[in-house]
Amino acid sequence: MDQPTFQSIEKAAERISNYTNKTPALSSSSINNMVGGELFFKCENFQKVGAFKFRGGCNAVFSLSDEQAAKGVATHSSGNHAQAIALAAKLRDIPAYIVMPENAPKVKVAAVEEYGAEITFSDSNQKSREETLRRVTEKTGAHFIHPYDNNDVIAGQGTAAMELISQVSDLDIIITPVGGGGLLSGTAIATKHLKPKIQVIGAEPELADDAYRSFKKGERIPLESTTTIADGLRTSLSDRTFSIIHSLVDDIVTVPEESIIRDMRRVWERMKIIIEPSCAVPVSAVFDKKIDVAGKKVGIIITGGNVDLSNLPW
Amino acid sequence: MDQPTFQSIEKAAERISNYTNKTPALSSSSINNMVGGELFFKCENFQKVGAFKFRGGCNAVFSLSDEQAAKGVATHSSGNHAQAIALAAKLRDIPAYIVMPENAPKVKVAAVEEYGAEITFSDSNQKSREETLRRVTEKTGAHFIHPYDNNDVIAGQGTAAMELISQVSDLDIIITPVGGGGLLSGTAIATKHLKPKIQVIGAEPELADDAYRSFKKGERIPLESTTTIADGLRTSLSDRTFSIIHSLVDDIVTVPEESIIRDMRRVWERMKIIIEPSCAVPVSAVFDKKIDVAGKKVGIIITGGNVDLSNLPW
Repeated sequence: MDQPTFQSIEKAAERISNYTNKTPALSSSSINNMVGGELFFKCENFQKVGAFKFRGGCNAVFSLSDEQAAKGVATHSSGNHAQAIALAAKLRDIPAYIVMPENAPKVKVAAVEEYGAEITFSDSNQKSREETLRRVTEKTGAHFIHPYDNNDVIAGQGTAAMELISQVSDLDIIITPVGGGGLLSGTAIATKHLKPKIQVIGAEPELADDAYRSFKKGERIPLESTTTIADGLRTSLSDRTFSIIHSLVDDIVTVPEESIIRDMRRVWERMKIIIEPSCAVPVSAVFDKKIDVAGKKVGIIITGGNVDLSNLPW
Repeated sequence: MDQPTFQSIEKAAERISNYTNKTPALSSSSINNMVGGELFFKCENFQKVGAFKFRGGCNAVFSLSDEQAAKGVATHSSGNHAQAIALAAKLRDIPAYIVMPENAPKVKVAAVEEYGAEITFSDSNQKSREETLRRVTEKTGAHFIHPYDNNDVIAGQGTAAMELISQVSDLDIIITPVGGGGLLSGTAIATKHLKPKIQVIGAEPELADDAYRSFKKGERIPLESTTTIADGLRTSLSDRTFSIIHSLVDDIVTVPEESIIRDMRRVWERMKIIIEPSCAVPVSAVFDKKIDVAGKKVGIIITGGNVDLSNLPW
């Protein structure tokens, strides 16, 4: 299967530069004192739509030829990828068709509507979502953009690590959360090209540990279902992302739910930034000593900040 | 009464530079679209102790001669000034004695203890706080640092606006909240020296509008008591801060409680940063059109991010 190259990440960075925010890499001396290393939080919660997903979605939408783009773009997602595609389509002035489960949080539906996308509701199971999407694309002729099993999406996600490496010199480790594996794949391709000595590590909830088990066994073992609070990480690797991760990533570690909630709150309290549960997963990998950061410089990609403020886990 | 000069702010900036964070000035395109102007949020919620108060406290502690500092420093505060003095004293390696009301939030007591300060509890009324402080300073010989009626504190607070002006060119307006007036005083002195054409405006809760009424009447009218949610703004101007504000500030506006809560949440949701209720007051002044920002570049000093996450106002 063809995979994104570093050159495709470089091109993505150029393609999306007018539409994306250059996000800061923030540090907290109190957190650094607690863990004994220097952590740099690449704040993609400050990215457009509040999540790194806009990098990949934007690159995918703007990579289409005019002919491919003419009838719009479509995807199924209840989360940040939906908003990313909706905003990118709006910026390119083409229609966006989003399939969302009928039980999707109202705030997320409202955000997608705000960007002018057309929403079709499905049942919440994967089969219904895929069938509904097929009906939508057959009817509209829209181009499907998968949330992570897509080279342009992966290349776009890789621009976050590329930017981080230009902002913080001499990093020893970069950690990202793993769900479908798009971010970790793009991060690994960018990092191993630019600074092969930087360790690239994925962090995953114990309750959604398909990437961990696949990585250790050397073959893809998809997840049946999961209830992890890290709602951005409930998906499983695809063949494409597994293959990239298996060949380029140094390690994958897992953390329990209670650590995720604890460290989500800890980052809110200490750093005064709003992060989603998914973002706390790499932070917990550090606090739970699943990764040794003593005396090291560590980049963590903070993936997003879209949280229902009326329904916090504490 | 002698007042801080711009030179004292310049000296403060130099004195505290090794201890403070240079905080970013963040923007949100979605908020800018909503208000029709360009807002720059000077993020003092990312400052040490989570609030701009560290600038003034740090400057005051490090301005003392060795002789003055030998027996430590003292203050009464239930909030960010207490943490600021505690951390600054720790950095200078001198004792800190903090008088806190017995009903102070546990998180704030814990934060002050974490910095190694000695806490003495008083009743929650002003008289008991002042009497307790007097007993503490008589017993210890510690040097009292007032939260805002102190030239070194005011000079320290002025460094935030000085930094903001160096970060964002061509500002038309700078807005700060007003409580005791230390931040607004320092901001006005710095701004009117560096860029006299920038308008300096204070924003205050309607429920704690002593600065508004004093400014309009031309004489100081202290507040009896208030229940505003903006707990950092419940204090009244001193003669010193009133005099500075009266001579240098362009306007003071007020906003209702419901706007403060609405815009606190709006900033959390749109910008993914945690701000205290007090910080939302200038933001509400913009959203409620108390200040005309159409087509203008506007700096807002985000004063702090210390919030009890288990007790949010929505």
